Amino acid sequence: MSAFGFRLEAQDGRARAGRLETAHGPVETPVFMPVGTAGTVKAMLPESVKATGASIILGNTYHLMLRPGAERVAALGGLHRFMNWPGPILTDSGGFQVMSLAGLRKLDEDGVTFASHIDGAKVRLTPEGSTEIQDLLDATITMAFDECTEYPASHEAAARSMRLSMRWAERCRTAFRRREGYGQFGIVQGGTFEDLRGESVEALTAIDFEGYAIGGLAVGEGQPEMFRVLDFTAPALPADRPRYLMGVGKPDDLVGGVERGVDMFDCVAPTRSGRNGQAFTRRGTVNIRNSRHRDDPRPLDEACGCPACRDYSRAYLHHLVKAKEILAAMLLTWHNLHYYQELMRGMRAAILAGAFADFAAAFRRELAQGDIAPL
Amino acid sequence: MSAFGFRLEAQDGRARAGRLETAHGPVETPVFMPVGTAGTVKAMLPESVKATGASIILGNTYHLMLRPGAERVAALGGLHRFMNWPGPILTDSGGFQVMSLAGLRKLDEDGVTFASHIDGAKVRLTPEGSTEIQDLLDATITMAFDECTEYPASHEAAARSMRLSMRWAERCRTAFRRREGYGQFGIVQGGTFEDLRGESVEALTAIDFEGYAIGGLAVGEGQPEMFRVLDFTAPALPADRPRYLMGVGKPDDLVGGVERGVDMFDCVAPTRSGRNGQAFTRRGTVNIRNSRHRDDPRPLDEACGCPACRDYSRAYLHHLVKAKEILAAMLLTWHNLHYYQELMRGMRAAILAGAFADFAAAFRRELAQGDIAPL
Repeated sequence: MSAFGFRLEAQDGRARAGRLETAHGPVETPVFMPVGTAGTVKAMLPESVKATGASIILGNTYHLMLRPGAERVAALGGLHRFMNWPGPILTDSGGFQVMSLAGLRKLDEDGVTFASHIDGAKVRLTPEGSTEIQDLLDATITMAFDECTEYPASHEAAARSMRLSMRWAERCRTAFRRREGYGQFGIVQGGTFEDLRGESVEALTAIDFEGYAIGGLAVGEGQPEMFRVLDFTAPALPADRPRYLMGVGKPDDLVGGVERGVDMFDCVAPTRSGRNGQAFTRRGTVNIRNSRHRDDPRPLDEACGCPACRDYSRAYLHHLVKAKEILAAMLLTWHNLHYYQELMRGMRAAILAGAFADFAAAFRRELAQGDIAPL
Repeated sequence: MSAFGFRLEAQDGRARAGRLETAHGPVETPVFMPVGTAGTVKAMLPESVKATGASIILGNTYHLMLRPGAERVAALGGLHRFMNWPGPILTDSGGFQVMSLAGLRKLDEDGVTFASHIDGAKVRLTPEGSTEIQDLLDATITMAFDECTEYPASHEAAARSMRLSMRWAERCRTAFRRREGYGQFGIVQGGTFEDLRGESVEALTAIDFEGYAIGGLAVGEGQPEMFRVLDFTAPALPADRPRYLMGVGKPDDLVGGVERGVDMFDCVAPTRSGRNGQAFTRRGTVNIRNSRHRDDPRPLDEACGCPACRDYSRAYLHHLVKAKEILAAMLLTWHNLHYYQELMRGMRAAILAGAFADFAAAFRRELAQGDIAPL
């Protein structure tokens, strides 16, 4: 078992290439983490997730604590074994899902009480509880339990929320059981305010985490505002620790994030869109349900090496989506994850070669072209 | 391209081992054909279907003619290319689904008019039309268009229905475009009546098809009655042609069918059950949704080499089914198809070794044990 560590390998502008060492294997950054909400990256076998190039996935504490339950997962050997993913797993803290999914929330200084979205059962989550649950799940990277500040928020509300999260971060760090190769990340909050983000970074770095996440973004503020916040938040973080932008994003969000010094990302976009007939390609988003694809013998993206593009026509994918076939979700999810990983690989190689600006410009040129013309 | 042909390799009692040669590759019999209704074996990549050992799959003319349409499939290179299954494909004639799925049916001497279950559109299907559609789909094996006699049926009704199917069989044969390596099967009808089944066999063999199917079974008559009909129908068929029992069945139906001289089977049971949380194992049917599996770290079947059994616990599969995860359908379908193919391989090896009776006895002993005891 190796020590948890991060090594910065190259920097190009603010874009960074690095390498994370963990108890469950290495992670090259910048990295995109597919979301495996309930112990499965939806519609994918874990070996297929691996085949796309993914090295680390995300699990949702909120979902797993409710079903099948953290103690049960622990008794079955932990999440890695349970879901057959031996590689690194980052678990979120549950805080964000409590806010977005659960009913009847009641927040106090100690934690939050809510009703399960599955059966309405009353559940309590605290910084200590969330940390222990992530330990039971055997998370390679544990996230601090925070309050995701709503958007928009006044300076006063953002400050109050952020300071609560900072007090919780300290309690999470105390509750964290340190083990070789495992790490815990603090989460920067502070809304869209530079002073508050700065204060949050100071509070977290004083606690000293193995990595730092930027939370409270991608919650409706839009890309320009998100980039503006990143512009002052990312550089404030310590250079020798990984930086994780939570819940982001679309392909151009990833490029803009890396450009601003982010190392890690997660988002449901590639998997959720895959189940909804939407494909991300070099030339933008393709809605394969659109009747223009009905007779199109061409692949989704002729330059893509994923099974969906290698073996099937747009017409076939269109048919699968229309017929509500499970294979539609399987193939489009695979394609989307493959494309995301391909994009991350491309960015990493560009950073290592000192050519990130060229890569980003070429990416944006290609994206701006839009999809291939109908036949 | 090779000629379509069947060679009987061994016989043990009435059980037969043989080999079908087709334009799309060989098929060793006895064989189970997974059902790929709408151009996909549900929840499976074709390479995974192949990995279970399947050599030939079934496509449904009724579904494919309605969506995406036979002309469209033809324009896209045929069903093999469309769905990325280069191996042999048998298509049914659409007759059975017209009876079971379509609305507002009207049958006359020439054919049948019905309302599509997708959009209610009025559609006409005749022996010539069905044969042409299967040709457009590029079916390796084309089935004659027949009327599946309802069960129960009086001798008079069964006779009338069977004789209509025999007149249609002749029209199908005339309409069939003969090509190297492609074949057409006639379908024996006649309900549960020995004299009518005999008359049907005579009518079909006089026409001379590349193979013969036994239709009108597995429609509610129950296994003993089905076996009784097979007992007099299968031996009446020419020994040098493949025999296909349509829409059958559960594992013990397959063993009983092979025992009675059947070479080919198809059924939605393994795929449909897989999507409903049901697994077929050597020790019977396992309903993985049952709470007894919730904490069970053991595989579905420790002797099975499929991914579901190799990499996952019953507890995990239970969790996936409860959480309605697509991966549940993927893994359980894979397991069921693997088990079915394993069973067919076992029967074939036993026939070739002259030990089919022992195999069938061992199969029944194991099945009678029932599932492993709860922990």
